Amino acid sequence: MKAPDGPNGLVVKDVAAPVCGPEEIRVGVRASALNRADLLQTMGLYPAPKGVPADIPGLEYAGEVLEVGARVTRWRQGDRVMGLVAGGAWAEQLVTHEREAIAMPVGLDFSSAAAVPEAFMTAWDALFLQGRMTAGTQVLLHAVASGVGTAALQLCALHGARAIGTGRSADKLERIRAMGLEHTLLVSKDEPRFAEQVKTLTGGRGVDLVLDLVGGAWLPETLDAMAPQATLMLVGLVAGASAEVPLRTVLSKRLTVIGTTLRARALEEKIAVARRFEQHLVPHFTAGRLKPVVERSVPMAEAAAALERLAANDTFAKTVLTW
Amino acid sequence: MKAPDGPNGLVVKDVAAPVCGPEEIRVGVRASALNRADLLQTMGLYPAPKGVPADIPGLEYAGEVLEVGARVTRWRQGDRVMGLVAGGAWAEQLVTHEREAIAMPVGLDFSSAAAVPEAFMTAWDALFLQGRMTAGTQVLLHAVASGVGTAALQLCALHGARAIGTGRSADKLERIRAMGLEHTLLVSKDEPRFAEQVKTLTGGRGVDLVLDLVGGAWLPETLDAMAPQATLMLVGLVAGASAEVPLRTVLSKRLTVIGTTLRARALEEKIAVARRFEQHLVPHFTAGRLKPVVERSVPMAEAAAALERLAANDTFAKTVLTW
Repeated sequence: MKAPDGPNGLVVKDVAAPVCGPEEIRVGVRASALNRADLLQTMGLYPAPKGVPADIPGLEYAGEVLEVGARVTRWRQGDRVMGLVAGGAWAEQLVTHEREAIAMPVGLDFSSAAAVPEAFMTAWDALFLQGRMTAGTQVLLHAVASGVGTAALQLCALHGARAIGTGRSADKLERIRAMGLEHTLLVSKDEPRFAEQVKTLTGGRGVDLVLDLVGGAWLPETLDAMAPQATLMLVGLVAGASAEVPLRTVLSKRLTVIGTTLRARALEEKIAVARRFEQHLVPHFTAGRLKPVVERSVPMAEAAAALERLAANDTFAKTVLTW
Repeated sequence: MKAPDGPNGLVVKDVAAPVCGPEEIRVGVRASALNRADLLQTMGLYPAPKGVPADIPGLEYAGEVLEVGARVTRWRQGDRVMGLVAGGAWAEQLVTHEREAIAMPVGLDFSSAAAVPEAFMTAWDALFLQGRMTAGTQVLLHAVASGVGTAALQLCALHGARAIGTGRSADKLERIRAMGLEHTLLVSKDEPRFAEQVKTLTGGRGVDLVLDLVGGAWLPETLDAMAPQATLMLVGLVAGASAEVPLRTVLSKRLTVIGTTLRARALEEKIAVARRFEQHLVPHFTAGRLKPVVERSVPMAEAAAALERLAANDTFAKTVLTW
């Protein structure tokens, strides 16, 4: 990859295999997946954090353990694992701390498993761990047809929360309704208006919790759609990295706005989320109550074309890359 | 009061005495104090909530119990009480739920006690109850020379937190330093710049917690002055009710922004804060570790002139009104 050349700067080439530390495992990557952060990284807008391969995108993987470090206790060669990394997953091999890796749900193949970590951990961490979603919570899911959005709507159902999803494509929202989400709102790109509809759907009260992947010009409307003391989890900025915010609304409704990202976290925090995720959510994948949503699975060599589709908003849920 | 005539619409006149419900007490108000909300209310910008006298400002009081309702157990006639009300404190009498009233600290006179509730409860609720301030927390106090600010700096000292205060008047900041706050930053009205200085004072890290009474154009700089995972408590909007917010900063530093106000809360929440305040903080006033800061005590009939001084930012800490 050569930032800021964009997706076209991506080339497949031989590099040295990563070295496995004493508490790390070396994973043979069988599949990875696309995230908007990869696109931004190829454009030079979201550089990899320190200690991560700067020129290899890829934030999630599913694969097999090839080697275990001297102090590793959780894994042995051949175990099937999945997880998040801060970069470098679009490679045949990667290394990760043994406690950051998650046992692949029994019954999932590598392509499906690769679509789990970023979408479901982001949505679960934001909605449940930080946003305290529980049975009855009224949730607004922006960009519900995205990878995180399609994970979030399943997590809402699992927790007994009530969801309303937004999107800018009627076709994609049709697919969302086919997945069982009753309430979807089509939002115009030029004039985002949805607060009144959200209020109508919530008996005039507004939502308790927002999973916001868009930010930007939608923000005033989003704040207007929120109930008193509601929480907005700011996860993405597809609609813009800056916004004119009506602070009076934040103050008088006593709203909470929390910015969140998984990538920039310290090791101990990443481990804590991974361990809880393995314990609490992996069994639901095995049982079929949670399902990774893979629209397309394409060879790694076609990553550039896949990123271009993502850039054009021409994707639904997750695109997986396989070796 | 006749909104939106401003302070000059205030007149002293006879009205019917308020009626005391079975769980309420009727208080003979001996002193009240000024808040910015009173000014906004006279201008028609911050109407009283339902169930509150619409034309009598005043959010806090100190006085004597004149009458107790049939089910009242905590008070008897003659007890000295102080507290918050949602309006109507600039009167000779008011009624309040018996559990919202707080026993006046022993040793404080009515004028001093009237300067306690709004300033100290707002600051304590925002910094401690919601902002989780504790020993070692690095706190930024905007408008430190205000009533809430001067309460906040004392609460920081009491909790072992480290405070930096900002203000737009060199004279007032001199008085703040005389109160024992070492780090004060003079901020220019036209070009609020303080983030670099805050970072220097915090070893490059930024602050963990902000008590923000100004909002508006200061906000981008405030966010820049915050450490990763820091919390901004938005309490006031003196610098503007709207702001262009760099959402990228909120997201990448994983900041939390919480809007808060005491006035709009439900009875049970107000009671909860009042009871905890009486238990945890009133003893510190009695012991002299916390001190209400009264700049001026003026007769109730001079409320209009006092509000004009507040509007001109020509006040320091609290102005008290007495009958």
